[in-house]
Amino acid sequence: VKGPRRTGVRVGLVGSAFMGRAHSFAWANVASVFGEVSRPELVAVCSRDRGRAAELAGRYGWGESEEDWRRLVERADIDLIDVCTPGALHKEISVAALQAGKHVLCEKPLANGLTEAVAMVAAAQEAWEAVGAQAVVGFNVRRFPAIRLAKDVLSGAGTLRHVRASYLQDWLVDPEFPMTWRLDRSQAGSGALGDLASHLIDLAQYITGQQIFEVSSLMQTFVAQRHVAAASSGLSATSGADLGHVTVDDAVAFVSRFADGPVGAFEATRFATGHRNSLRIEVNADDATVGFDIERPNELVVYRPDGGLEGFRCVNVTEGAHAYMQAWWPPGHVLGWDHSFIHQARDLLIGIVEGEKVRPDFADGLQVQRVLDAVERSARAKQWQTVQESEPSYGNHVLND
Amino acid sequence: VKGPRRTGVRVGLVGSAFMGRAHSFAWANVASVFGEVSRPELVAVCSRDRGRAAELAGRYGWGESEEDWRRLVERADIDLIDVCTPGALHKEISVAALQAGKHVLCEKPLANGLTEAVAMVAAAQEAWEAVGAQAVVGFNVRRFPAIRLAKDVLSGAGTLRHVRASYLQDWLVDPEFPMTWRLDRSQAGSGALGDLASHLIDLAQYITGQQIFEVSSLMQTFVAQRHVAAASSGLSATSGADLGHVTVDDAVAFVSRFADGPVGAFEATRFATGHRNSLRIEVNADDATVGFDIERPNELVVYRPDGGLEGFRCVNVTEGAHAYMQAWWPPGHVLGWDHSFIHQARDLLIGIVEGEKVRPDFADGLQVQRVLDAVERSARAKQWQTVQESEPSYGNHVLND
Amino acid sequence: VKGPRRTGVRVGLVGSAFMGRAHSFAWANVASVFGEVSRPELVAVCSRDRGRAAELAGRYGWGESEEDWRRLVERADIDLIDVCTPGALHKEISVAALQAGKHVLCEKPLANGLTEAVAMVAAAQEAWEAVGAQAVVGFNVRRFPAIRLAKDVLSGAGTLRHVRASYLQDWLVDPEFPMTWRLDRSQAGSGALGDLASHLIDLAQYITGQQIFEVSSLMQTFVAQRHVAAASSGLSATSGADLGHVTVDDAVAFVSRFADGPVGAFEATRFATGHRNSLRIEVNADDATVGFDIERPNELVVYRPDGGLEGFRCVNVTEGAHAYMQAWWPPGHVLGWDHSFIHQARDLLIGIVEGEKVRPDFADGLQVQRVLDAVERSARAKQWQTVQESEPSYGNHVLND
Amino acid sequence: VKGPRRTGVRVGLVGSAFMGRAHSFAWANVASVFGEVSRPELVAVCSRDRGRAAELAGRYGWGESEEDWRRLVERADIDLIDVCTPGALHKEISVAALQAGKHVLCEKPLANGLTEAVAMVAAAQEAWEAVGAQAVVGFNVRRFPAIRLAKDVLSGAGTLRHVRASYLQDWLVDPEFPMTWRLDRSQAGSGALGDLASHLIDLAQYITGQQIFEVSSLMQTFVAQRHVAAASSGLSATSGADLGHVTVDDAVAFVSRFADGPVGAFEATRFATGHRNSLRIEVNADDATVGFDIERPNELVVYRPDGGLEGFRCVNVTEGAHAYMQAWWPPGHVLGWDHSFIHQARDLLIGIVEGEKVRPDFADGLQVQRVLDAVERSARAKQWQTVQESEPSYGNHVLND
Repeated sequence: VKGPRRTGVRVGLVGSAFMGRAHSFAWANVASVFGEVSRPELVAVCSRDRGRAAELAGRYGWGESEEDWRRLVERADIDLIDVCTPGALHKEISVAALQAGKHVLCEKPLANGLTEAVAMVAAAQEAWEAVGAQAVVGFNVRRFPAIRLAKDVLSGAGTLRHVRASYLQDWLVDPEFPMTWRLDRSQAGSGALGDLASHLIDLAQYITGQQIFEVSSLMQTFVAQRHVAAASSGLSATSGADLGHVTVDDAVAFVSRFADGPVGAFEATRFATGHRNSLRIEVNADDATVGFDIERPNELVVYRPDGGLEGFRCVNVTEGAHAYMQAWWPPGHVLGWDHSFIHQARDLLIGIVEGEKVRPDFADGLQVQRVLDAVERSARAKQWQTVQESEPSYGNHVLND
Repeated sequence: VKGPRRTGVRVGLVGSAFMGRAHSFAWANVASVFGEVSRPELVAVCSRDRGRAAELAGRYGWGESEEDWRRLVERADIDLIDVCTPGALHKEISVAALQAGKHVLCEKPLANGLTEAVAMVAAAQEAWEAVGAQAVVGFNVRRFPAIRLAKDVLSGAGTLRHVRASYLQDWLVDPEFPMTWRLDRSQAGSGALGDLASHLIDLAQYITGQQIFEVSSLMQTFVAQRHVAAASSGLSATSGADLGHVTVDDAVAFVSRFADGPVGAFEATRFATGHRNSLRIEVNADDATVGFDIERPNELVVYRPDGGLEGFRCVNVTEGAHAYMQAWWPPGHVLGWDHSFIHQARDLLIGIVEGEKVRPDFADGLQVQRVLDAVERSARAKQWQTVQESEPSYGNHVLND
Repeated sequence: VKGPRRTGVRVGLVGSAFMGRAHSFAWANVASVFGEVSRPELVAVCSRDRGRAAELAGRYGWGESEEDWRRLVERADIDLIDVCTPGALHKEISVAALQAGKHVLCEKPLANGLTEAVAMVAAAQEAWEAVGAQAVVGFNVRRFPAIRLAKDVLSGAGTLRHVRASYLQDWLVDPEFPMTWRLDRSQAGSGALGDLASHLIDLAQYITGQQIFEVSSLMQTFVAQRHVAAASSGLSATSGADLGHVTVDDAVAFVSRFADGPVGAFEATRFATGHRNSLRIEVNADDATVGFDIERPNELVVYRPDGGLEGFRCVNVTEGAHAYMQAWWPPGHVLGWDHSFIHQARDLLIGIVEGEKVRPDFADGLQVQRVLDAVERSARAKQWQTVQESEPSYGNHVLND
Repeated sequence: VKGPRRTGVRVGLVGSAFMGRAHSFAWANVASVFGEVSRPELVAVCSRDRGRAAELAGRYGWGESEEDWRRLVERADIDLIDVCTPGALHKEISVAALQAGKHVLCEKPLANGLTEAVAMVAAAQEAWEAVGAQAVVGFNVRRFPAIRLAKDVLSGAGTLRHVRASYLQDWLVDPEFPMTWRLDRSQAGSGALGDLASHLIDLAQYITGQQIFEVSSLMQTFVAQRHVAAASSGLSATSGADLGHVTVDDAVAFVSRFADGPVGAFEATRFATGHRNSLRIEVNADDATVGFDIERPNELVVYRPDGGLEGFRCVNVTEGAHAYMQAWWPPGHVLGWDHSFIHQARDLLIGIVEGEKVRPDFADGLQVQRVLDAVERSARAKQWQTVQESEPSYGNHVLND
């Protein structure tokens, strides 16, 4: 049985691209920054592209590099499998790892489809009960201090009325930008929906403490054919000669209702000229409004009544009293996007040591998946769709505590 | 037959509340600011509240004050009827005025329902053909120089992809705010939809030059009962003892598709804590993005590629080269919200003199009304609704030229 | 003796250029907007350019137009002389008007030199004592509601530490921009110093309630020769063939100390590329900071401690509770730069009716002039200069009450 | 002789507080992020507080911890001494290290006084000639991609006119905040001047490529006595019972002239309520303006003429084409304050390998020191002071190449 441990957690990473690098950065730094955390051991990294795995190993100090993720799952000297692959592999790897009694950190969205996500939750539940294995989904945006503060401000700020959230990028505006795996439904599951809107949905449900229960949506593919990528890295790529069919959405927009009354307006796109990576969310409660923009992640916009001096204020969320910030720099010395992954690693490692379930877990990921599924159904049916009932959750599962 | 005239247009105003005051401010200033315009004659103002009419007359120099709008329509010495009443009266007054051969400026939204709006367009068409009477709807937001610039930037900026627009206010968050006519369907037609979203719809269609053809929406009344207003003025009011039923929407949100491909996300509400009067619109084309916020109306946010130095720029739309600005102050000396009404008066007076149809005319108002109607149908049906086909338009009606 | 009067004040305006137009706009609107004010009578406007005077008269309803300002001062049917000429004429006109028992509103800066300003205060004092004549200097920026709020916030916000203020324009960056009277010391007195920094000095002293007592400065003329203007209007002009010498400063910067401890950093320039008309001021007290930008004049930036949720907030100063705003539109419907002149006219007219001295009066203008003088002396001497002691002030003169 | 080396540079760090941690973070990450850099060896860390040194060693993987910095200088297995102590020790440690043939990275400001700085440059020159030792001063702000872009934009943007720069903090507003070494002249040399304004001076000279040659300043200590700190860390501390005298400036402001014509306005303070760590700089050239704010370090504000669509644009400096960014994340995934130290480490390590002098070197640090010295002299003398002529520089020293 997994239990509290004093030595460092032994990590195996699957994936060596954009997310693989961001997670490596996190594992390498988490114990240096957070003194309360034992240093994880970077045992092995795995990628279908062996050379890239080896390079990442050299960079970040992974002990070994592998081509087949099964090698990692089989190893007894690995405690945690970190899944940074395209969505198509999330289920197979995660379930195998959980069945091998390992903790799993799986990138978002949890899966490419609802069936897979349900299976993953089942495996997670079993592994939790059997060996206390963590099964966490990588919604890193929750880990910004500003998001924690947003949730705090809203609790006790009266009735919630509105959520509006958008995730705008523009890397597909250029029609010469090539096909990559992110534009292929068989690998990515969906486009802007799963990649971008999934963050919005998780954030919205987390901050408000309420689930979305119905949606009406549209999905759009603006450019249907693109040249197949010769090479890609992160969100950049170069084109080859062959044409491929874009099988995912370039953009999605939906209106929605939350469990206890607020209404939501959501939008995600890769065609918003000028927006490199603009994730924004605003929530209006009767007694407060909060707003966040991931391109200025150290700031939280807050509105609260104040006797005639009300106004949207920009809180610099870098004080020692703010979540995670005691470990960093003096006030006003801002963090970057990548620091959120260090926070994620910290929370996960502490949960492992203390034997406490870390959130967002696979059940949270499944709930997001259900919303993604309802959005897809609604876009096809051109009418409102209800978000599927949750499977009986394992443990005493309360949203967002 | 009405034709070009050299002496000032003789105006009769119906309505003495918020809009009546804003229009009075415009009529009083238009010829002082714009040298090319003959000074209109402020013949008479009319209000059910005679005292308020008299007070407004005293303030702005209206020659007489009346209690019954019919008195104005009957007068031979009035050329133009300016309709600033609640929506329930728009049709009756406008049609009567047009049938009397008068020009009409009618506040937005054009009517409380589609049937009324169709009748108003019919009357407008007849009056235009008969005597060249103008029939203009008061979408004043079009008259900001920044909006003109936005339209210019988009023309020739490649394929349009996204429109996102929101009109957020917060004056109903307080449950003690009383019932006023704006919360009564029989007077106002609808709530946030007709009052706020109508501006967004007109702006979006104007800037893009494309009509919305289908929508999926939600409408919400958060607070269903309020104390009846003892007195109200503008958007403020004081409560009386009786309870009344709010019969309009507090908030509306919808996704939509435009004629030639772009998708739209719209939201309007009176429950967005902290937002006093935040009308924002952003349009993404392949080669440019534009953004506008009515609380900073002298600024247009523009993004265009620029060889590695791209960024959202804030254009101070106060140069002599910008629309209307030659008549005002040196660059950087900003205008207010109310100046847009002076511009509206200018455009209308010039159109009257030159015998050219002024836009947005009643047909434009009808097109907005069709979208409002589709939004209402969609909210009820919980599925997408197509915007009704336009009636054969009068003249050679091309959108937004 | 001038005393409270019930009929409208009879105004004569000297000057028909940029400021003449702005003041005309104010006189024309003040009684319409502010019900408590009797409508002023626009008796006559005067300009060396008779045609322009006539045109302005036609536009704004001035009863007559004149070429010689003395005609206005001589008239018995004028109560108030509004001086909108270049600085070189301020003293002569103002003193003559005051000696004729008329109220005077004189544009800023009060004079082109200290001696003139002292003489003007003497005349003002005499006229006040003799007939209760007002002598007001046109620091219109004080009249923005946000500035009033800034002063309120600072009072009771603890010890003041810092004032930083800048007024940045860019209309002289183009070396082809011609000589106008504003670049000629004999007409304008100084350049950025008197035209722009004077606003900053008045504002800083007004908001803080403290006088500047010593300064160290630099003044700079970047472009020493320009083609003489063929024609000019406001801040725009076209070039002729002859070369002229720029005899004023293009830019000025100074550090300073205020009476009770705070330190100040000031800058004014016409060479700040991109800044059309950016007047900004920020004051730091121990318990609050306030910030204002005239290009967003409806907003006041405020910082106050708030139990972990501190941040710079943007107060939308458009509520009925804010200064002047009861007379305007609902919250969030913003005012422009020119509205400040309407407020100025209101305050002056009320003061005339009530027989209460209106501030900033000539003594306030003189205090600013003393600082301007010290700045000029310091730039020449290259060392700190003390601001000259105030002449014994007339009445019980307390700064900024 | 030091020459290009292929194995990792062996580093010894002196200092374990705020800067010691930031540098540790950099040494630990530089080779992971930048593939072109050999991994430095973290040989030893030294602090007067042995426990803190040991803790930092444990966190960041320093091989050993020491109490006496001489131990580090004596070791043959250390190539580079990283000096993160209070200023009082900079000279002694740096000179000893250089004389021992080691590379030195010394935190800013270079020294507590001009004499020390001159001695340090002499030692640096000797060591460079003898063994190619680098002597770099830690002006990390230069290492933000946005600052590099600012310099690029200005080159070729015509004549420079203005520099305005401020560094505002507020951690001393609370009178109960205790004495720390930063408030003690014998340790820190000066207060806001050396700690904060030194950054502004270096940045201004770097971006413009021009030296400041004369200044007029004021310096102010607002709170003269504070309780001696019981414990401090970074910029936070807790108070003890004894009273100590603050012997440095709380705030400084100065105006200045640069070599080729632009004028400068500078301000640094620890009493600007609400500003946690606001370093801002703006430079106006005839054809462009650039602006930077370290609390939004991924953004550069740029203004350039653009045919009627000019405006201040916010460039998101996170593209692969921007300095350093090829090694990081996709566009829009922002960096933090601490990443600038990783960039600093990269530049230094590459310089060491390639045998090319890395800037800002000690001579650059001396030039800043001369300005600091002139500012202090000016504050005392209350008149303008010229910045001392540079000693003959070593090598062919051209500013900011």
